[in-house]
Amino acid sequence: MEPRQERSRATRRRLLDAAILCLAEVGWSGSTVALVAARAGVSRGAAQHHFRTREDLFVAALRHAGAARVGEMRRHAAGLPTGRERTEAVVAMLVDAYTGAEFAAGVQLWAAAANAPALRAQVLPLEEDVGRQAHRAAVELLGVDEGAPGVRESVQACLDLARGLGLAGLLTDDGPRRERVVRQWAVMLDAAVGAARSPVR
Amino acid sequence: MEPRQERSRATRRRLLDAAILCLAEVGWSGSTVALVAARAGVSRGAAQHHFRTREDLFVAALRHAGAARVGEMRRHAAGLPTGRERTEAVVAMLVDAYTGAEFAAGVQLWAAAANAPALRAQVLPLEEDVGRQAHRAAVELLGVDEGAPGVRESVQACLDLARGLGLAGLLTDDGPRRERVVRQWAVMLDAAVGAARSPVR
Repeated sequence: MEPRQERSRATRRRLLDAAILCLAEVGWSGSTVALVAARAGVSRGAAQHHFRTREDLFVAALRHAGAARVGEMRRHAAGLPTGRERTEAVVAMLVDAYTGAEFAAGVQLWAAAANAPALRAQVLPLEEDVGRQAHRAAVELLGVDEGAPGVRESVQACLDLARGLGLAGLLTDDGPRRERVVRQWAVMLDAAVGAARSPVR
Repeated sequence: MEPRQERSRATRRRLLDAAILCLAEVGWSGSTVALVAARAGVSRGAAQHHFRTREDLFVAALRHAGAARVGEMRRHAAGLPTGRERTEAVVAMLVDAYTGAEFAAGVQLWAAAANAPALRAQVLPLEEDVGRQAHRAAVELLGVDEGAPGVRESVQACLDLARGLGLAGLLTDDGPRRERVVRQWAVMLDAAVGAARSPVR
């Protein structure tokens, strides 16, 4: 890559990271392009060169963060145990993906989109894409056959549960409760999809 | 009740209802006491007589809405089927409780509280109280013994799943998907807690 291209890419990346932190910390109404540019140490003009609108910037930031989370999960796949223990490890990993600044930023964007049609029109396809990626990763990591009855819905329930636990955890960090729910949910999931597990696991 | 007390109670109730709709429709940053008072057809002075601060008004509105939802669930208990069908009916009822204007308002308050310590200090005990009421109602409606291993965590997972489905449903009304997840989750829940069901059901 040319140095100029590389610099441009680094600037974009700094803006995306700053956008996540900004959204998580001050919410949508206070999250302006100017504030993100200042936090990223980028001129406002440069920020506007990369992202035409405020919506573009924050949707791109969440898209990048979502894909990064799914990528991380896949990279950890090799280190996961097999059999029943694998189910609990995968559930814990999915639930962990719905925490931190990325998820907090997602909730702020989601809440804002509920009342802003222009933003909503961009958030819906974002959510669909990231949701699809997360679903596919979950199926692969669990090593289950989605064609078997109930498997698809069980995996979806897994992601919905993770989202619900994430929302609860936004205001309080109740780790021990989350762990107990994850353990019990893994037992239930294993009972439901264990037979659909591919024999290589 | 004296006519004056009755009028005061009706005014308070109108303010609470208007607060829910206002918060669901315009979000926290636009939801002022003045706007709620105008929507409720109440003078600003009267609104401030009932609620000293903006936080007090919206927290009271969510507390009232939460208790009303739990009360509704209990009233429907008599009409529920018994056995396995009961599990699905109860899960569907719980999931339904996390929809509509009340839940949308809750998400807005929740998102705002993440970045506002004073609001957060009031939202946390509210959430704890409503969560405890919902948990107790779920245990009773499912007719399970919470002392049996895994039952408490299964019921918690149920409420976390409902919250996650509710958040997903805030931007899209994907009823058919929700129904499929509810059905599968009911099968899993029944398998997990069926043995802990009290014999009278």
